[in-house]
Amino acid sequence: MSDLLPSWNDREAKRAILQFVTNVTTPGDAFIKPADRIAVFDNDGTLWAEQPLPVQFDFIFRALADAAQRDVTLAEQQPYKAVLTQDQSFFEAVGKQQPDAIMALEQALVRTWLGTTPDEFEAEVTKYLSKAKSKRFGVPYTDLIYKPMLEVFDLLAANDFRIFVCSVGGREFMRVIAESAWGIPREHVIGTAPLYEYKEGKIRRGDELLGGLALGPGKVEHIFAYAGRMPAFAGGNADVDIEMLQCSNFAMLVVHDDAEREFAYTKSAERSVMVARENDWTLVSMKNDWNTVFS
Amino acid sequence: MSDLLPSWNDREAKRAILQFVTNVTTPGDAFIKPADRIAVFDNDGTLWAEQPLPVQFDFIFRALADAAQRDVTLAEQQPYKAVLTQDQSFFEAVGKQQPDAIMALEQALVRTWLGTTPDEFEAEVTKYLSKAKSKRFGVPYTDLIYKPMLEVFDLLAANDFRIFVCSVGGREFMRVIAESAWGIPREHVIGTAPLYEYKEGKIRRGDELLGGLALGPGKVEHIFAYAGRMPAFAGGNADVDIEMLQCSNFAMLVVHDDAEREFAYTKSAERSVMVARENDWTLVSMKNDWNTVFS
Repeated sequence: MSDLLPSWNDREAKRAILQFVTNVTTPGDAFIKPADRIAVFDNDGTLWAEQPLPVQFDFIFRALADAAQRDVTLAEQQPYKAVLTQDQSFFEAVGKQQPDAIMALEQALVRTWLGTTPDEFEAEVTKYLSKAKSKRFGVPYTDLIYKPMLEVFDLLAANDFRIFVCSVGGREFMRVIAESAWGIPREHVIGTAPLYEYKEGKIRRGDELLGGLALGPGKVEHIFAYAGRMPAFAGGNADVDIEMLQCSNFAMLVVHDDAEREFAYTKSAERSVMVARENDWTLVSMKNDWNTVFS
Repeated sequence: MSDLLPSWNDREAKRAILQFVTNVTTPGDAFIKPADRIAVFDNDGTLWAEQPLPVQFDFIFRALADAAQRDVTLAEQQPYKAVLTQDQSFFEAVGKQQPDAIMALEQALVRTWLGTTPDEFEAEVTKYLSKAKSKRFGVPYTDLIYKPMLEVFDLLAANDFRIFVCSVGGREFMRVIAESAWGIPREHVIGTAPLYEYKEGKIRRGDELLGGLALGPGKVEHIFAYAGRMPAFAGGNADVDIEMLQCSNFAMLVVHDDAEREFAYTKSAERSVMVARENDWTLVSMKNDWNTVFS
């Protein structure tokens, strides 16, 4: 069989992925029937670079800053204040799933795009992505998708897996790039999403999120709703992915240890690395396991 | 090309369906790229018989009657009262999308299965379906799926459409039969659904619905969330399907006019037939267009 993971060095992680796929597709105790072959991946830090700031944070921060300029009373409230003063602590609180921070962020997300149609939002995302570039690499963000992960997509798809992406990032933002960047259908993108309202022939964003943030336990709740089952294969890179990885037959955790080719950091992933070791999840060292990083 | 719709008589409806599929798959003005080939079908009355009572109404009514027996204070409230007294008017009010009736039904649905895990609920549905039979035909409900509609599924799938079912009925109930009855993956089933909560390694039904009832405009809202687009092809049979059909490039409406082989009724479909005529939707006469009804 030809090597479907050429960007992966022949080390433990690659062997574990290949072994799992062989096991679940071969008759025996570990066999999983094709209908149940669901694979789910986090996006930021798992499929593309998330430093110094996840792409959607950048997109959202610009919108929040614009809103605070139009309405100065917002500037004193979170998350606008944190954006304007470049105060990381508020967003770290979101990452730690602190209820006050989450509620403030949810309300701001809803307020910012209230009444927007899908076409209007898609146009905004397309415009943003056509201009925005990574500060470090000077290229569009979609050039910073990890080639080894797209190879895992291809390997899984070749073995009758259906590939989903599940991120706390906005579902609608990711759906714009799903087909071109990942080769997956839009409906396989799961994420934080607005509740739409249909009136007079148009759907528009309403004043709530649909099922809250897809973060931590929220990822599992969203995955079950959209994919109809728990995943057989899951990939993540951070503490907010732990629950999703716990629900999967196979779990892989991308470790950012490659300062030269990408970034080296452990922030927001300290707990996930510990849980991975306790549970024998597959740790993927970007530095050692990948001979190529970007597509 | 072999006839993929053998249960359809060679009349206007069959020709319209075949013509649409040819048009959207042939380069030209009407071409739809495969990624956008989404087909959505209502379930009750569109894919299987819904008389004298939709299957899920029967399932729910039994559960509500049980609950009212355990807690007599419920017997005086809706929808329990309507179930116990076999009063159709309450459920007709739901069909007409009256807010009080909808809220009462939503609350009862949530209360009945609060805390239930997906496995527990699936076991309940499987047990129910293994015993329940149609009063008129004396066979399990899954034997009352319309063969001509499954042929439309096959025709569309052969032309790279992805088939979804969207019903006001419970998403979780339908997902149990999705693969065996319709040959579609579970995640292509859209419907009224609980908000799940993930705690301590389990997901359980929470105290809300996820996005309300998939009824009328709610169908469009749910379809956009799960399928990521508006449908290219939609099939329905009732007034609550109008919005979904309006959002589709091609719309077909099943008309129940076959008292001999199925049922003849226009109730809850009066408005949809009018709108179909105004909009040149394809009207499907069960009596005249189908040479076979059940699989």
